[in-house]
Amino acid sequence: MCDQCVIETVKARMLSRRDVFKSAAFGAGAASVAAMSASLPAMAQDPRSVSDLTHELHQKFPTFGGEDQFFAEKVVDFAQDGYNALTLRVNEHTGTHMDAPLHFSEGGQSVAEIPVQNLVAPLCVVDIREKAAEDPDAQVTPDDLTAWMSAHGDLPQRACVAMNSGWDAHVNSARFRNADAGGTMHFPGFHIEAAQMLLEQADVIGIAVDTLSLDHGPSADFAVHYGWLPENRWGLECLANLGALPARGATLIVGAPKHRGGTGGPSRVMALV
Amino acid sequence: MCDQCVIETVKARMLSRRDVFKSAAFGAGAASVAAMSASLPAMAQDPRSVSDLTHELHQKFPTFGGEDQFFAEKVVDFAQDGYNALTLRVNEHTGTHMDAPLHFSEGGQSVAEIPVQNLVAPLCVVDIREKAAEDPDAQVTPDDLTAWMSAHGDLPQRACVAMNSGWDAHVNSARFRNADAGGTMHFPGFHIEAAQMLLEQADVIGIAVDTLSLDHGPSADFAVHYGWLPENRWGLECLANLGALPARGATLIVGAPKHRGGTGGPSRVMALV
Repeated sequence: MCDQCVIETVKARMLSRRDVFKSAAFGAGAASVAAMSASLPAMAQDPRSVSDLTHELHQKFPTFGGEDQFFAEKVVDFAQDGYNALTLRVNEHTGTHMDAPLHFSEGGQSVAEIPVQNLVAPLCVVDIREKAAEDPDAQVTPDDLTAWMSAHGDLPQRACVAMNSGWDAHVNSARFRNADAGGTMHFPGFHIEAAQMLLEQADVIGIAVDTLSLDHGPSADFAVHYGWLPENRWGLECLANLGALPARGATLIVGAPKHRGGTGGPSRVMALV
Repeated sequence: MCDQCVIETVKARMLSRRDVFKSAAFGAGAASVAAMSASLPAMAQDPRSVSDLTHELHQKFPTFGGEDQFFAEKVVDFAQDGYNALTLRVNEHTGTHMDAPLHFSEGGQSVAEIPVQNLVAPLCVVDIREKAAEDPDAQVTPDDLTAWMSAHGDLPQRACVAMNSGWDAHVNSARFRNADAGGTMHFPGFHIEAAQMLLEQADVIGIAVDTLSLDHGPSADFAVHYGWLPENRWGLECLANLGALPARGATLIVGAPKHRGGTGGPSRVMALV
């Protein structure tokens, strides 16, 4: 088929979007284009489904400190100005977000300095929903990691290990922070010994939780933050929908922001299964 | 191998990160764990490399209007407070960013409403660097798309079509906006007829540019914005590094933000090749 024929075929598509799909001429043209491209390398259609591990962010999204940390203002309005735009004001550690190494270190990687190769990782989901339902202060322990490995094999290289405590279900209620009368919060997180064990696995690059902090709610010392992040590993907090994923086999994609000197920030986190 | 043996092996790793890698006992243990996991389904190690299509964002990142649109303030400091955190103020349409359908429509999808399946797409890179170097007002035309299809075959289903004008190289100079004495900007973009042609391809879900706007710099009517976005298609602006990608075969990942009612926002954009 000549190039000019392809050009004419394609241009014909522009005449009318609706009519052209009904036309025999378009059908014939499209078939010819398809035939021409059959000898080209096939497009690698990704057959995997995409899971969204990101909560919707809004002003009342629960925060570690309890105060609102996200504000949006409509500064351009379609009805008045012909288009829409917002300005946003946000504390980096709000919503489904990244903790970069710099968050808890003096000179660790900023969010812009994390190698992009480290934003795509095999995802290992450690399910502690049962014990978290009984004890909101539950932690991922070395025994939980060992049990995961017994069931699913060695941790893959350059993995992210995520805690699924089922806490994402509470995101729209006070149960998410679960503060007691004294203000101490009660939600699950990683135990420092589990974080230390993962550091022994040289290629574990990130940990993730479905709660407000890598450390569990009552932590007074942020042991996991101080033990993990300064090793130039990252953390993810407030993940959603981990329960829909296999324990092993998904690929995590971390759409972290890339602002200079950032200590983290709201991220679009997805999984390919 | 018994579970308890695995437990002991894994616990041994915690004793000393450095010493343990030298120990014969660790080596034997690791081999045994690997042997145990050999009968389990293999982890789908993603062999593909990750390309970062995102510019670093900072206060002086060039903007369409010419004014600063990103501001970061350090509100918590490691030396003084024990950790670091910033608050950010940003216009959604700053840096490497998403234009959601709502940006140029009254009721189109907000950035939070775009189906997550539409944030992963086969990427088609249309190279117009040669003509853009001669004419900064160059546009992607139907002929460019036709030539791409002649060389690379039909557009894949649910694709993103990206313009590579080479403009990302100018991001740190006045050439990026390239405003003339009268204030009119001169940089490449999509021609409305090319956008209309892509609308005929029912499964093209997004278009992308390496400049400040889907429309080329001198556009007075935002024809592409008004023609494309209200069709519940999205756009990406200020992409980087498209020149490192094949014309066909990469998978685009759009780490768009997910704030309620958002018209777009700074995004982490990556490609898997």
